[in-house]
Amino acid sequence: MAVTALRSFTAGELASICNGRLAGDASLSINAVAAIGEEDSGAVAFYSDHRYRERLLRSKAALLIVTPRDREEIDDILPNAALIEHARPDIAFLKIVAVMFPPPEVEPWIAPSAYIHRLAEVDPRARVENNAVIGPRVRIGGGTRIGAGGVIENDITIGEGCDIGPRVTIHGYCTIGARVRIGSGCVIGAEGFGFVKSSEGMLRGAQLGVVVIEDDVDLGANCCIDRGAIGETRIGAGSKFDNLVQIGHNVHVGKGCLIAAQVGVAGSTRIEDGAVLGGQVGVTGHVTVGENAVIAGKSGVINDVGPHCTVAGYPAVEHFRWLRGQAIVQRLPELEKRLKELENQFVAARRR
Amino acid sequence: MAVTALRSFTAGELASICNGRLAGDASLSINAVAAIGEEDSGAVAFYSDHRYRERLLRSKAALLIVTPRDREEIDDILPNAALIEHARPDIAFLKIVAVMFPPPEVEPWIAPSAYIHRLAEVDPRARVENNAVIGPRVRIGGGTRIGAGGVIENDITIGEGCDIGPRVTIHGYCTIGARVRIGSGCVIGAEGFGFVKSSEGMLRGAQLGVVVIEDDVDLGANCCIDRGAIGETRIGAGSKFDNLVQIGHNVHVGKGCLIAAQVGVAGSTRIEDGAVLGGQVGVTGHVTVGENAVIAGKSGVINDVGPHCTVAGYPAVEHFRWLRGQAIVQRLPELEKRLKELENQFVAARRR
Amino acid sequence: MAVTALRSFTAGELASICNGRLAGDASLSINAVAAIGEEDSGAVAFYSDHRYRERLLRSKAALLIVTPRDREEIDDILPNAALIEHARPDIAFLKIVAVMFPPPEVEPWIAPSAYIHRLAEVDPRARVENNAVIGPRVRIGGGTRIGAGGVIENDITIGEGCDIGPRVTIHGYCTIGARVRIGSGCVIGAEGFGFVKSSEGMLRGAQLGVVVIEDDVDLGANCCIDRGAIGETRIGAGSKFDNLVQIGHNVHVGKGCLIAAQVGVAGSTRIEDGAVLGGQVGVTGHVTVGENAVIAGKSGVINDVGPHCTVAGYPAVEHFRWLRGQAIVQRLPELEKRLKELENQFVAARRR
Repeated sequence: MAVTALRSFTAGELASICNGRLAGDASLSINAVAAIGEEDSGAVAFYSDHRYRERLLRSKAALLIVTPRDREEIDDILPNAALIEHARPDIAFLKIVAVMFPPPEVEPWIAPSAYIHRLAEVDPRARVENNAVIGPRVRIGGGTRIGAGGVIENDITIGEGCDIGPRVTIHGYCTIGARVRIGSGCVIGAEGFGFVKSSEGMLRGAQLGVVVIEDDVDLGANCCIDRGAIGETRIGAGSKFDNLVQIGHNVHVGKGCLIAAQVGVAGSTRIEDGAVLGGQVGVTGHVTVGENAVIAGKSGVINDVGPHCTVAGYPAVEHFRWLRGQAIVQRLPELEKRLKELENQFVAARRR
Repeated sequence: MAVTALRSFTAGELASICNGRLAGDASLSINAVAAIGEEDSGAVAFYSDHRYRERLLRSKAALLIVTPRDREEIDDILPNAALIEHARPDIAFLKIVAVMFPPPEVEPWIAPSAYIHRLAEVDPRARVENNAVIGPRVRIGGGTRIGAGGVIENDITIGEGCDIGPRVTIHGYCTIGARVRIGSGCVIGAEGFGFVKSSEGMLRGAQLGVVVIEDDVDLGANCCIDRGAIGETRIGAGSKFDNLVQIGHNVHVGKGCLIAAQVGVAGSTRIEDGAVLGGQVGVTGHVTVGENAVIAGKSGVINDVGPHCTVAGYPAVEHFRWLRGQAIVQRLPELEKRLKELENQFVAARRR
Repeated sequence: MAVTALRSFTAGELASICNGRLAGDASLSINAVAAIGEEDSGAVAFYSDHRYRERLLRSKAALLIVTPRDREEIDDILPNAALIEHARPDIAFLKIVAVMFPPPEVEPWIAPSAYIHRLAEVDPRARVENNAVIGPRVRIGGGTRIGAGGVIENDITIGEGCDIGPRVTIHGYCTIGARVRIGSGCVIGAEGFGFVKSSEGMLRGAQLGVVVIEDDVDLGANCCIDRGAIGETRIGAGSKFDNLVQIGHNVHVGKGCLIAAQVGVAGSTRIEDGAVLGGQVGVTGHVTVGENAVIAGKSGVINDVGPHCTVAGYPAVEHFRWLRGQAIVQRLPELEKRLKELENQFVAARRR
């Protein structure tokens, strides 16, 4: 399946957008993008992962982005395609797609069924969709969309150019920066899990803090970001979250982090700038994951992780150490047998 | 607790519904179903799991479904109950319940508070509940219910006989087949996690594709099914998902799969027909889980899984191998001690 | 960041609220609470975790709660602060915060955009917010808030003093006790995952039961509690759940349990009174987790867990045994090498 753009581009334009080297007709007209092997006529695609070579063989790309190394082979396979040479075809493709498919402009609108409290300030260039509820002292910046059915409680500032998806809840006193995207079903600023079992029964810590989401953050669908107990939970500028992520109270996530789906981070933990957490990772409370650290999917982090470290497993350890350990776990029955044999032989040898 | 049906059935009718062999009065009137040991008068129950024998002893079932093997014992315990003999009492019971409790008819209705775009086409036999929002070029089939507070964006087709629960979001351009059930809070067609950290900073891949959900699919509550980046994410006919499942962009789930709660499947992975994924399983991107494969709960799949294989653990390996490995992990302190002892004895022996 | 209360309290009042021993001016005026090291003037804080000693050094607390053991050191560091001595400063602080920040009164209101079925009974002291949908035969107690966008289907009783957050779904026939708090986005009473693959294809068990949530339960955001297949799913009085928790059909959770984020409990399992489940724990179906048992985060429970046991890992075993086992797993490459060496030496020795 190719996806068709609203207007055509020339191969020359596209090569210059991604700063690639064009081999072929610069005036060739391209109006669609496609995954390799799924092109209709007039589509640009890219090829870099050799696991998809089978798809290359059936490709009908008019324009294909390839590495210089793959160039010669592809000349033979697709003699009629124009080519763009680029060291990173995937990145070149992203850039081309971004230009061919600019995000639609937000059309200012206040749906008649939206509820806007008289003490709310909604920029005239903002859009508030059906049944959204905007509480007192909420300020919404220009170019921001509040999706249908959203509940934006009170005393909340949302910056310019945000896309708050349908059915998002933002509880009171939170702050959202500019160009933030929040997926449908997210709950921002719910109370943290502040219960303490004591000899006097279950005690509940008041949850008086806030959530601060900095500029250019992206949250997937159905995520939960709890407010600070006292003080704030903060998501740093440019960090990107996938769906169903759980962030506990007073967690600080740095700038430019990548948090994959179903990750959970417990209270008061710090995730430093540029850290990457794989899917279903769990991080306990009150620890620090260092700058640019990488946590492999499904790991359980119960201690600090140093900057630039790559860890895996539960408890998480250095990644290759984990891989080696797990490989031997699978051979443990054999190892135990070898040990048993050696013990027997040793006993037999002593008897002689 | 027994659950009472709207009308009574005879024991003879029920035996014939499940194709079982009745021992007892065929005209016996049954108007309720219950779990074993929790029956009121006039209820049918089943017994097959011997862990529940204690409940059998306090059963007041008027009609009990049992295996031929258990028949004799039960004659003694419950001399007054009519019995249905069936090789699979659990399945016989499901069939009886399905007939005694048919799903209620959908009563056509457009709630006054629903928003239906003038370019939407809603079948007159469909039902759109309070505050649901139906966007332009949405088509909704007969007998389909759109629950309260749902947001069905634009250019979406939903087939006949669907049950779209309360507060479901379906983003633009997705396709939903017939008799599909989507649980409350699901988000269908959110943008995938297409971020790439590069030397030029964080790049975002456009998410231009769609989600296709085939006929007879069942999704639990609060699931997230991301749209394809380019091309589609597809859920095959008859597949059943539990709650809080995460499906990444361009994933293909085959027909008749069972996906338990809190499973996460990363982008571009294929789950072939009939595969079964246990709770909290994680599957990495770009791999294939073969036809009828079974992945034990909590496993982490980072490589292809062959058809009809049963795997467990992280990294997932053949199930029994994993079980044996884990059993020995628990005895590793003892194993290490034995090794140490052998080393010492060996040194001592050489000294002699 | 300090959080300011609506009125001031004296140090003497606060010491008596938490039953602590005041050293300093009993008439000192306190009007704010803060985390240690983040105080403005007039704030009370507490210090007990020595990992935060650095924050102690920059503390500007007017009143600090400390252990008797830490008292002397703090006299030197903060000579101008009044002190409250208490064996558990964290608990003393919770109690003070609870008094300084009482939960706001619920102001009775029926939003004009709320839908209340003519057969529903809403107490005049209850509050129903914008776009909430209250179905037939729903009864809502005094002092209870139904948040914006909630969907309360039919034949549901909700007790007094509950806080049902924005965008919560409660399906038909469920029962909610008094003083229950349900986080935004929760789905209560969805159908369980009752599918059986059989030789006749996929069969679906009817889901005819209910959910019962007892008094003083707290559920986080986006949780899913499935209804019983037949009979009930029950959450015992005073149990507290974090976000994104999944509870299968016919599960019984006892009283006073703590269930952390992203836990999943499969069908028909029993979690007995006072049990504590760490984040991302998975518990299989049809097992029992005993009274006051503790399951470490990320564990996979596939067998019964005894009362008062602490377990970890997957399959979960006694906690220290798991820790010891995992520690050795990391050293398995070395162990294997030692075994290999011993084998070689043994062979060499026999040759001599």
